[in-house]
Amino acid sequence: MSKNKIGIIIGTNRNLAFSEQIAAYYQKQLEEKDFETEKINLKDLPADFAFTALYENAGKNPEFQKFQTVLDTLDKIIFIVPEYNGSYPGVVKTWIDGLRHPDSLSYKKIALVGLSSGMLGNAVGLSHLSDVLSYLNANVLGLRIKLGNISQHFSEGKFTNETYRQFVDKQIKLFIDF
Amino acid sequence: MSKNKIGIIIGTNRNLAFSEQIAAYYQKQLEEKDFETEKINLKDLPADFAFTALYENAGKNPEFQKFQTVLDTLDKIIFIVPEYNGSYPGVVKTWIDGLRHPDSLSYKKIALVGLSSGMLGNAVGLSHLSDVLSYLNANVLGLRIKLGNISQHFSEGKFTNETYRQFVDKQIKLFIDF
Amino acid sequence: MSKNKIGIIIGTNRNLAFSEQIAAYYQKQLEEKDFETEKINLKDLPADFAFTALYENAGKNPEFQKFQTVLDTLDKIIFIVPEYNGSYPGVVKTWIDGLRHPDSLSYKKIALVGLSSGMLGNAVGLSHLSDVLSYLNANVLGLRIKLGNISQHFSEGKFTNETYRQFVDKQIKLFIDF
Amino acid sequence: MSKNKIGIIIGTNRNLAFSEQIAAYYQKQLEEKDFETEKINLKDLPADFAFTALYENAGKNPEFQKFQTVLDTLDKIIFIVPEYNGSYPGVVKTWIDGLRHPDSLSYKKIALVGLSSGMLGNAVGLSHLSDVLSYLNANVLGLRIKLGNISQHFSEGKFTNETYRQFVDKQIKLFIDF
Repeated sequence: MSKNKIGIIIGTNRNLAFSEQIAAYYQKQLEEKDFETEKINLKDLPADFAFTALYENAGKNPEFQKFQTVLDTLDKIIFIVPEYNGSYPGVVKTWIDGLRHPDSLSYKKIALVGLSSGMLGNAVGLSHLSDVLSYLNANVLGLRIKLGNISQHFSEGKFTNETYRQFVDKQIKLFIDF
Repeated sequence: MSKNKIGIIIGTNRNLAFSEQIAAYYQKQLEEKDFETEKINLKDLPADFAFTALYENAGKNPEFQKFQTVLDTLDKIIFIVPEYNGSYPGVVKTWIDGLRHPDSLSYKKIALVGLSSGMLGNAVGLSHLSDVLSYLNANVLGLRIKLGNISQHFSEGKFTNETYRQFVDKQIKLFIDF
Repeated sequence: MSKNKIGIIIGTNRNLAFSEQIAAYYQKQLEEKDFETEKINLKDLPADFAFTALYENAGKNPEFQKFQTVLDTLDKIIFIVPEYNGSYPGVVKTWIDGLRHPDSLSYKKIALVGLSSGMLGNAVGLSHLSDVLSYLNANVLGLRIKLGNISQHFSEGKFTNETYRQFVDKQIKLFIDF
Repeated sequence: MSKNKIGIIIGTNRNLAFSEQIAAYYQKQLEEKDFETEKINLKDLPADFAFTALYENAGKNPEFQKFQTVLDTLDKIIFIVPEYNGSYPGVVKTWIDGLRHPDSLSYKKIALVGLSSGMLGNAVGLSHLSDVLSYLNANVLGLRIKLGNISQHFSEGKFTNETYRQFVDKQIKLFIDF
């Protein structure tokens, strides 16, 4: 695992998700600081993975295993997580439920970024996801970013809300040193 | 919606899940009290529903829509929810993410039952699920049942742990009056 | 317990709290609908209650017991809860920790209202408080109100934000029927 | 701040709390590894601190300020937190609400230990507390220890449950390297 490589998970399988734009922003910031990045986009999961990659089928779906292989090369990961129904997308948890148990996320360092069209910026969903990651012995950076009303504050690849930009910048700096 | 019909959701798509046995127990208790029950087993979902029944495909997967149709007949629902990775299964949330938005669970009355092979009985997962259901304007019964170390306390269709049996019995009584 | 009496808890002991204004708003709305209200203001607690009304001193502080006596007359309670340090005030939980155990809140019907100077409207704190109330067998109304950026949206006893006004109105209607 | 000093917070103001015994255990383990420890026992707080050390009185109670002074010398802190009413004690949050805002816990490294007479080991309360600490930019170690049924598994200063002993030992090792 390279200390200079940081994974970015796009935490939804929705097409054209806003999360992709936020992921691209983080990627650009990290590459400007000479970090290598690796994107994991959950929309690339095999469509039937909830049935063909979990439980008695754990480890048997080659397309799903590609995600495991990439994950295993990562020491630090940023989760970009939209708010669906007041929490994080089910597909994120289903993906975690399909990973090799129990060590796939152990001791990995994780940063959380929530976004929403409403005000909350997935604050509650990041709490839920933090519990799951903690249960799996991952270490989650304290500073969770909550990007509420995202469509009003991000445009053409940039934050138009200076407070958001500064919080994201601060999180990236803290995460690099985490 | 019949006041005498109660839905029971088996909150996993795993084959031969312990949750099915607990669901059968609740069903039996309810039927002895002259309630009709309707089981919803998430293992019957179409395998690719996370991609074919969500977002731009919402409402378009006929097999998924059968779940919606049944759900729409229910006023009261018991969720039987195993603990996976310290929370409730991703497939439960993905199923919710595919339901007609935003009213599919509004004002429904819901009881939560967690189970786990470990000690916690999915206490944390029931907290997470309660947040999601609350966000969707469902009303969740206060008494959440947490069945830790389940394989030691349930056998041949019955609770061998008297405390568990009494808590479940109490929850059913409260839920009928809820 | 009168069906036409609703308690309102001001969930902080801060002087001149914004929560008092929100409580007054709820009180006015309820009284216009011919409900009697009973305010419980945690700033009236005895200053040393965390030590003189808990544990071996449970039940022994007469000033604290007045709160218990009022609480025991209430069937329905609205908690107005500001966000402090990302959750609900410690004084609310300490007050609960001092109540007669374990039945003080059992089966009571509760509505939650969060407020904050920031964006979140105490969304995470209401999740935490809901867990505690649920643990104590209270039934919490699904619709939790989250009043973010409150000082911009409430003035001279009224909501200046129409969405907030409508949500509060809806919650009150649902709570009356709960 | 010495890298070889670790704080231990006894997260209750109850007399003769079991948490004190667990804190003594952690202290002994750390001292055997040549770490200096500093205990913060919330039962030593001034009895009226919820009123005399918060809000307009923040920073003005000299007895409370002694806690602030000690806290400011600590880089790493272990919170020992009993389960009261399904979460962590209100006094812990009230103490946090009285600390100098907003940097008192920023960037501190924190480990969480829950204990309970029931099965859950304060799992839900540690989730709540983790949210608060994260909000304040503290970094919480992923591995949270949940000591359910504690009185059956700890006696005369030692864990009689080998699994508990090993988990605590693992947490201490991870925390030293955190």
